[in-house]
Amino acid sequence: MMINITFPDQSVRKYEEGTTGLEIAKSLSNSLAREVLAVSVNDQVWDLTRPIREDADIRLHKWDDDEAKHAFWHSSAHLMAEAIEALYPGTKFGIGPAIENGFYYDVDTGDDTVISDADLPRIEKKMKELASQKHPYQREEISKQNALKLFDKKGDEYKTELISDLEDGTISLYKQGSFTDLCRGPHLPDTSPIKAIKLLSLAGAYWRGDEKRKQLTRIYGITFPKQSLLDDYLEKLEQAKERDHRKIGKELELFTFSQRVGQGLPLWLPKGAQLRERLENFLKKVQRQHGYEQVITPHIGLKELYVTSGHYEKYGKDSFQPIQTPQEGEEFLLKPMNCPHHCEIYRSKPHSYRDLPVRMAEFGTVYRYEQSGELHGLTRVRGFTQDDAHIFCRPDQLKEEFIKVIDIIHHIFKALDFSDFVTQVSLRDKEDKEKYIGSDENWEKAEQAIIEAAEEKGLETIVEYGEAAFYGPKLDFMVRDAIGRKWQLGTIQVDYNLPERFDLEYIGADNQKHRPIMIHRAPFGSMERFVAVLIEHTGGKFPLWLSPDQAIILPISEKYHDYAEKVSNFLNNYDIRTLIDERSEKIGKKIRDSELKRIPYLLIVGEKEAESNTVSVRRQGEGDKGAMRLEEFAAFISQEVEHQLSSIDTI
Amino acid sequence: MMINITFPDQSVRKYEEGTTGLEIAKSLSNSLAREVLAVSVNDQVWDLTRPIREDADIRLHKWDDDEAKHAFWHSSAHLMAEAIEALYPGTKFGIGPAIENGFYYDVDTGDDTVISDADLPRIEKKMKELASQKHPYQREEISKQNALKLFDKKGDEYKTELISDLEDGTISLYKQGSFTDLCRGPHLPDTSPIKAIKLLSLAGAYWRGDEKRKQLTRIYGITFPKQSLLDDYLEKLEQAKERDHRKIGKELELFTFSQRVGQGLPLWLPKGAQLRERLENFLKKVQRQHGYEQVITPHIGLKELYVTSGHYEKYGKDSFQPIQTPQEGEEFLLKPMNCPHHCEIYRSKPHSYRDLPVRMAEFGTVYRYEQSGELHGLTRVRGFTQDDAHIFCRPDQLKEEFIKVIDIIHHIFKALDFSDFVTQVSLRDKEDKEKYIGSDENWEKAEQAIIEAAEEKGLETIVEYGEAAFYGPKLDFMVRDAIGRKWQLGTIQVDYNLPERFDLEYIGADNQKHRPIMIHRAPFGSMERFVAVLIEHTGGKFPLWLSPDQAIILPISEKYHDYAEKVSNFLNNYDIRTLIDERSEKIGKKIRDSELKRIPYLLIVGEKEAESNTVSVRRQGEGDKGAMRLEEFAAFISQEVEHQLSSIDTI
Repeated sequence: MMINITFPDQSVRKYEEGTTGLEIAKSLSNSLAREVLAVSVNDQVWDLTRPIREDADIRLHKWDDDEAKHAFWHSSAHLMAEAIEALYPGTKFGIGPAIENGFYYDVDTGDDTVISDADLPRIEKKMKELASQKHPYQREEISKQNALKLFDKKGDEYKTELISDLEDGTISLYKQGSFTDLCRGPHLPDTSPIKAIKLLSLAGAYWRGDEKRKQLTRIYGITFPKQSLLDDYLEKLEQAKERDHRKIGKELELFTFSQRVGQGLPLWLPKGAQLRERLENFLKKVQRQHGYEQVITPHIGLKELYVTSGHYEKYGKDSFQPIQTPQEGEEFLLKPMNCPHHCEIYRSKPHSYRDLPVRMAEFGTVYRYEQSGELHGLTRVRGFTQDDAHIFCRPDQLKEEFIKVIDIIHHIFKALDFSDFVTQVSLRDKEDKEKYIGSDENWEKAEQAIIEAAEEKGLETIVEYGEAAFYGPKLDFMVRDAIGRKWQLGTIQVDYNLPERFDLEYIGADNQKHRPIMIHRAPFGSMERFVAVLIEHTGGKFPLWLSPDQAIILPISEKYHDYAEKVSNFLNNYDIRTLIDERSEKIGKKIRDSELKRIPYLLIVGEKEAESNTVSVRRQGEGDKGAMRLEEFAAFISQEVEHQLSSIDTI
Repeated sequence: MMINITFPDQSVRKYEEGTTGLEIAKSLSNSLAREVLAVSVNDQVWDLTRPIREDADIRLHKWDDDEAKHAFWHSSAHLMAEAIEALYPGTKFGIGPAIENGFYYDVDTGDDTVISDADLPRIEKKMKELASQKHPYQREEISKQNALKLFDKKGDEYKTELISDLEDGTISLYKQGSFTDLCRGPHLPDTSPIKAIKLLSLAGAYWRGDEKRKQLTRIYGITFPKQSLLDDYLEKLEQAKERDHRKIGKELELFTFSQRVGQGLPLWLPKGAQLRERLENFLKKVQRQHGYEQVITPHIGLKELYVTSGHYEKYGKDSFQPIQTPQEGEEFLLKPMNCPHHCEIYRSKPHSYRDLPVRMAEFGTVYRYEQSGELHGLTRVRGFTQDDAHIFCRPDQLKEEFIKVIDIIHHIFKALDFSDFVTQVSLRDKEDKEKYIGSDENWEKAEQAIIEAAEEKGLETIVEYGEAAFYGPKLDFMVRDAIGRKWQLGTIQVDYNLPERFDLEYIGADNQKHRPIMIHRAPFGSMERFVAVLIEHTGGKFPLWLSPDQAIILPISEKYHDYAEKVSNFLNNYDIRTLIDERSEKIGKKIRDSELKRIPYLLIVGEKEAESNTVSVRRQGEGDKGAMRLEEFAAFISQEVEHQLSSIDTI
């Protein structure tokens, strides 16, 4: 029997029934077969060696595809488990998945054996040895009873617990070399492509995330098909460590945390608050130019408000709990989002079709509970300030408003030097339309509007079905930073739900009541997250206009402190932000320390400068710029700032 | 026997033992005796007719003294009660005190009789009739038993309940005409000075403020010794009503409230948010010039933070209750003040004596529970944004820092046209020093520093002993508005407590650890309160630089909408905030409506203006300013703004 195999370019070829992904790759080219790592069959990722028995759409995955990486790292987790079992006989195994970068396995080596960082090279070495033996990964379907028997015999109670929760007839094992694991796959055909291996770190992890159960040892690792890829990755990891916003935030005194205030609640120090305010003012200006109006609303609202919006029912249990009043029996919630407050403002007066769109913006600080283990610097916090706005518009204005929001986000990203970004259009599930609210007609219009808007704006777009919010479709922006990492930032979402729940209205040209549509949008997402990304993108070397300190004055010795003061006052009159380093350190050390502080300009002052009313200028990362008269330097730096700002204004 | 009477100017005169305040006044002059209304004997206010039996310091009070007004209005409350008893026999009486402006009495006329607004003139008339009969107010000391018997016989259970709570030997009655009341006094000698009477309003009031007990009828009134004073007062009341910030806030669309968000939680509408932001930017600029640094902190903190600060113990029960987390058992509180967060920022790095003072500012939004009955527009709210700052300084810097804060507050008040203000210095109780924390030496230094600073700055100052906070002395600013009302605004407070509780330190020149002193200060108090006062002060006619809309363009007919648009775009390029009135109304009505909106400039455009590229300018309250070319008007209005801002900058 022959079957029809359809390729991504829609070409169709016939193969024997029972052919495998690997055989198909070989039929195309040997070099392809050497590089292919997994195959998607009708949108499910399969082992390359699994027989295909019916007509199918297939995609062959090389390393660059996420599907290939996933299989590669999942197989690597099994390989690590095999190595550990060889080195630490009797080890019991929890779970061992692929993750975004690499894989981990949770292991229990017994109470007497502790794996420490020093043991990782030994495990790595064993993994390399096993990998080179080119053991195939072999899939086997097994009955629940036999699976239980197998792991019971092995004495691995974690696996038997997992199996107990599975349905009979769905259970499979994967074996490579001497190691057998309960696993759904898919995996590589064999261990040989795993050429470069690095075990990265150790952590404690409660079995099934339950702090009442045993703590296992989680071992993180990453592998690559080539050493050069591993080298690049480790280099990038090193760079990322250098750029870590928590490290730079501390060095530049931008923000801090206090155990007594609470975890995940950033305290913005003066330099950070200044930076944030400058960003907010920039956004406010852009928004004003685009017809937005700022409002200010409180950080709490009656529980009733969130019952109306539906948020209480959906998120109430997992949120910060209600605030009781000492009398009168009221219940408030910390606001987790600004939209319900903005709906109430919309409701505070009647609207005509002529007044729309209403574009209501707020730098609104919201609070959302996150488990302490999930918190991370400024990117995962419990309180954050959204650069939020809600547009209330007529259905016929939706596409135009959407385009305008794309324009703003575009403008803002470019102004801040994030020129590399992709977008994701999230639409309804094609099959299951029941779970969404709003009429079919409105959804189709809205989805069409987003797709067209993205097209007209020439956005690089991924379309994902089933990823829409239950209340409407959305468009998300992911930026790539200077070292190529992707960060989810801004979002634009269409909402049919809140206008319904808050009974929002406008009087149409027909003198009848109509329902407006809401658009939620936040270019940065939050000030916290954006500042974190900006720090990691720039490594703390902010553009001059944003830089908390623009110049530091370095007197050669104490004799020139007065002159340094004079320079500082002179520059402050031009709104140039300066510092003076009055420590009694050698000038060389002062220069080095200033460069660590990432201050753009270093102004060295000594006898010559004091006499000639000049400063000796060094630009961070560029070195000596020679001596300049004070007016000259003020003009020079002001021009640089103006140039940056004007390029922002005219984008 | 003769006694020595000492007058405020320290002169001493001899009088017969048993002389009265009134007799002393007569001995000085007959005209004084006619005007005097009460007397202070050794700092206690007495009836003018009460015999003085020992040497004493006395002050005679005429109408302008608060002590005189208090006795006058208290006596008026008794007079009203007499009138009500005459008109509604069997009425029972709750309490009837003097208040800031006038007096009230809570009465129970029985279930079948209702006093309504329509009845007030009749009661007024009766009061006038009784007052003219010149009945003396007669004091009588009475035993508890006899007092109970008296009011029991009268059937007035409210009075018997009050008497039950009193100690025998301290009870007195006052009688005038046919009315007898349980009362401590003091009162006027007789009813004749009560010449002008106005009963103002009715309200329900639970007996003893307990909503489970009976609701009595509270009748508010005010009286004066002259009709002209009453006329002035009613005129001022009318003005105040016209200037009510709640009314103007609604008319100008500055802010609103939502029952669903919660009582006492203002929602700032675009024009209000703009006004507030402009004020904040003004304050930020002034503060930056004075060496303050802005920080931003979250709106919640762990309960632990407020246990450390002592606020939890003192205010916890009466505050918004703790916020639980769904896991991990944490407890947070809405922040009622910013100081604990600022202490944690201070603690986040070590400080040297050379780094002080640290001046940390934040527009921090805080939340404090108030009973719903206490809430009032923007002046009494549950959430408000303080223009807060904390100065951490060395003891030797205290006075200088205090002077600098006075300078800032001075500057700010003048810039915003509050040139008329008084200050109150609040010091420790002279007798009871136990209830204050901090060493005697520090208190004396701090009190001295405040007094000297206020003197050096030439402030009009009232000194009050026993009004200091338990943690330090303070200076409060009260402004008088355009119609003479006093408003408490800014405050400067010295604090020895929090540095202690948070264990704040700096390393001194001696290389030892020392404790800094904190100064709390807020020139406006809060943005909400200040905006309310500013509205009532200006009647909503804000200075041009603050005005949400600076000019409104009024096209004569629809034909000139395009030209109006052109004018608007032209002016927006000069950062002039404009509106267009595109309604199809007559120009007269457009002008009247714009004046109601208190927009400073009205620009009328019709055929003539469109042809000549001009606008016909009217200034709010000043009328026609003639035609101006667009550039001319832009320059004209920009100049006015610049003039206002430069006068602010150079104060």
